[in-house]
Amino acid sequence: MTSSEAKPSRAAVTLKTPKGTRDWNGADMLLRDEVFKTITDVFKRHGGTPLDTPVFELKEILAGKYGEDSRLMYDLEDQGGELCSLRFDLTVPFARWLAMNNIQQVKRYQLAKVYRRDQPAIARGRLREFHQCDFDIAGVYDPMIPDAETLRIIVEVFEALGLSITIKLNHRKILDGMFAVAGVSADKIRSISSAVDKLDKMAWPEVKKEMVDEKGLPEDVADRVGEYVRHSGTVAEVVELLSANEQLCANDDIKAGLNDMALLASYLKALDVMHKITFDLSLARGLDYYTGLIYEVINLPPKSDGGETQKKGKKDGPTTQVGSMAAGGRYDNLVGMYGKRTIPCVGVSFGVDRIFTILKARREKEKTINAPSIDVYVMAFGGKEFDGLLPERMDVARRLWGAGIRAEYSPKVKPKLPQQFKAAEDAPLGVILGQDELAAGQVRLKILGNSEDKAESEKDRGMLVKLDDLADEVKKLLVFDTLGKQKQTS
Amino acid sequence: MTSSEAKPSRAAVTLKTPKGTRDWNGADMLLRDEVFKTITDVFKRHGGTPLDTPVFELKEILAGKYGEDSRLMYDLEDQGGELCSLRFDLTVPFARWLAMNNIQQVKRYQLAKVYRRDQPAIARGRLREFHQCDFDIAGVYDPMIPDAETLRIIVEVFEALGLSITIKLNHRKILDGMFAVAGVSADKIRSISSAVDKLDKMAWPEVKKEMVDEKGLPEDVADRVGEYVRHSGTVAEVVELLSANEQLCANDDIKAGLNDMALLASYLKALDVMHKITFDLSLARGLDYYTGLIYEVINLPPKSDGGETQKKGKKDGPTTQVGSMAAGGRYDNLVGMYGKRTIPCVGVSFGVDRIFTILKARREKEKTINAPSIDVYVMAFGGKEFDGLLPERMDVARRLWGAGIRAEYSPKVKPKLPQQFKAAEDAPLGVILGQDELAAGQVRLKILGNSEDKAESEKDRGMLVKLDDLADEVKKLLVFDTLGKQKQTS
Repeated sequence: MTSSEAKPSRAAVTLKTPKGTRDWNGADMLLRDEVFKTITDVFKRHGGTPLDTPVFELKEILAGKYGEDSRLMYDLEDQGGELCSLRFDLTVPFARWLAMNNIQQVKRYQLAKVYRRDQPAIARGRLREFHQCDFDIAGVYDPMIPDAETLRIIVEVFEALGLSITIKLNHRKILDGMFAVAGVSADKIRSISSAVDKLDKMAWPEVKKEMVDEKGLPEDVADRVGEYVRHSGTVAEVVELLSANEQLCANDDIKAGLNDMALLASYLKALDVMHKITFDLSLARGLDYYTGLIYEVINLPPKSDGGETQKKGKKDGPTTQVGSMAAGGRYDNLVGMYGKRTIPCVGVSFGVDRIFTILKARREKEKTINAPSIDVYVMAFGGKEFDGLLPERMDVARRLWGAGIRAEYSPKVKPKLPQQFKAAEDAPLGVILGQDELAAGQVRLKILGNSEDKAESEKDRGMLVKLDDLADEVKKLLVFDTLGKQKQTS
Repeated sequence: MTSSEAKPSRAAVTLKTPKGTRDWNGADMLLRDEVFKTITDVFKRHGGTPLDTPVFELKEILAGKYGEDSRLMYDLEDQGGELCSLRFDLTVPFARWLAMNNIQQVKRYQLAKVYRRDQPAIARGRLREFHQCDFDIAGVYDPMIPDAETLRIIVEVFEALGLSITIKLNHRKILDGMFAVAGVSADKIRSISSAVDKLDKMAWPEVKKEMVDEKGLPEDVADRVGEYVRHSGTVAEVVELLSANEQLCANDDIKAGLNDMALLASYLKALDVMHKITFDLSLARGLDYYTGLIYEVINLPPKSDGGETQKKGKKDGPTTQVGSMAAGGRYDNLVGMYGKRTIPCVGVSFGVDRIFTILKARREKEKTINAPSIDVYVMAFGGKEFDGLLPERMDVARRLWGAGIRAEYSPKVKPKLPQQFKAAEDAPLGVILGQDELAAGQVRLKILGNSEDKAESEKDRGMLVKLDDLADEVKKLLVFDTLGKQKQTS
């Protein structure tokens, strides 16, 4: 590099993206967009309509919706005018949109980035700026029908992605009822619920410590909570277990929750979802706004395939798992917080970044080859007097672009042929221009195979094609290439 | 609504999106995504590779890149850790990415929202959160080759969108040379340039006033600037005009700029772009980082189709136009600001929101009908003992979803038939379940035409189809529907 080129250099600026954020490009971006498409295609099959909301919302819209997690919100600086924060999830903006537009019934999906000032763990696909892909059903329906469809959507999404999963289910009414029966006072229920939710990452003694020492729960109450929430199994098993406990069954919330679960089970059977479900009484979900069914998806086969009810935390160690790949539940009161009307909602949010991390690892193992990013490379070729034929290469490329074909040419006035072949490496087809052929209104069209002998390949100059037929001929060859192996043509 | 339902209501929260932002859904969202796809398809034809960057960048990365406009930047609150701002455009994040990854050559595109605390003008499609859709070519190439391709991309994009345009061109070196010859001191050139850029919105006397009163330019210098920048016409015309002026031609910057323009003209001819171009000496572009060719796209036919050179501001009033729909230019020093290496770049940014506004107005005039959002509505039908067949409707929908077909059913346990027909209004096909048919493993498949006689249409119960053949039969009918008119089947 000459010194004049280096002139614009400046004092060191830290060249990085902000903490917990990343750029997306190349194979990662292609895979990510493939995941997006797979998921949104399922949403569309279920009559979903897309929504896009601003990246920030009024602070007062987001306030009081996220419980303990609110401290992770990104705020915009007060530069005069309204106070705003970056969106924390897609559920609250959806509820705001429903209330603002007085929408009574909708199936909407949204795919967007959300923001949390959490401790990033990049290797596990956990960032501060990350993607959510949400499907929600809003409106007054007969009980558990939209809930069942949401669970069906989860199954279809992971089938389409080729990932085996378990859906852990619980019901906020059952959970809150258990807390009440165990002796947790009403004002402590949400914070104890948050502690219980950590049972998939922390051992019971730690969680109990948090309940007793930090949250001031009497030890005997904590122990009763611990006993109740340790059960999991099939829906039938856990419903039976709870029904057998007279004390629990006397609680109205638990009764209502059990009725919901029995109805849900009949729908899940019709939708062929049952085999993916584990009813897990320790599932609590951190967010405040859930009112009914809650669920979380982990990439493991179902825990109980007809065996007996299992207990969690047996070894007093955390369960090994990659973290939840999707989660959601019913939130019947959130929209009502904004307006006159209550609109019951149920939904699911897919953690696209975690899904991406798992699929990427699998691809790297399988060494999947990416599709070419270009169809045709336009080259020129000539003897001593060769002027590079740049305007002619431009003209040919323009014709190909006009026919919707992806084409490039060397950005040099007089490129050398080997350079052009090298640049053409990723393209399945080459068009070669020569002065004589052009004079006759023709060019050469050549399949750029993975020829063993490079020199030999460069000697084969392809088949002569009329300039006016070029786009059609290219399209024919491209069709052949996608249908089967490359065909010998000249 | 009962009083118990209204219970969750709370004190009034302002139900709105933040100033200058909006939600996207329904027909608007579909049209917007269509615009995105049209534009990115063109980018892909030219070998573009996608990039996605975080919505915020380190403040120091963005500092000093936007001149006077920097005050419009959204800052994040200092919550501890790094200081960040929302991205202001996609060009600076691209330059940061190039420098950070030491990328020497790339054609990249990016489609994302950017943020400016400007005065919003929603009717004109000007918001504080708005979309940009950028294509840039980075790398050392022979002169003007990537510049010409970028202009070709602009032409292809607007052809694909069905919008007629003019590309206004200028060259920063010619502009800066003119300023120097007119007597503008080096330290004032960028701020005088910003003033000149307002000539498409403000009359000359106002712009002159800004130069003299606000920016301290001597009046005679301002008048000379005014005289120079008023010219526009075809590239040949303006090149000729400038070449005839000995004083201007003696300036090295102008000489270099004129050489670029002559070379560019030959490439634009080969790429069939020339007829869309107006060389406009008043075009200045507000941003600091441009170093060569600059351009702006307006939705008007070219000003000069072979006629004589036109002068601007003749009536001392602003030209009527909708504002620029795309803009860009060459910025050879931006990447060098971040690292050791200079990487010359040229690019274009499409103002998707303005394009959307124009296309939406056109659609509303043409009353375009949107494609249906669902393929099949699954209904049930029965006599007195009718139980709603909900699990059966679920099972049928599940089969259709499994075959990639978009299907819905009523979320009621016992829906009435007219209600179901009403809900099915948007679907081209209906599947009707009856107890007797189901017992024989069959359902009825019915085309839901725009029947004049609703009662009559409800009487026609469609053709009997085996449950196992249903998905295939639906697919056949859907193909028919997209190829031609609906076919009478039973």
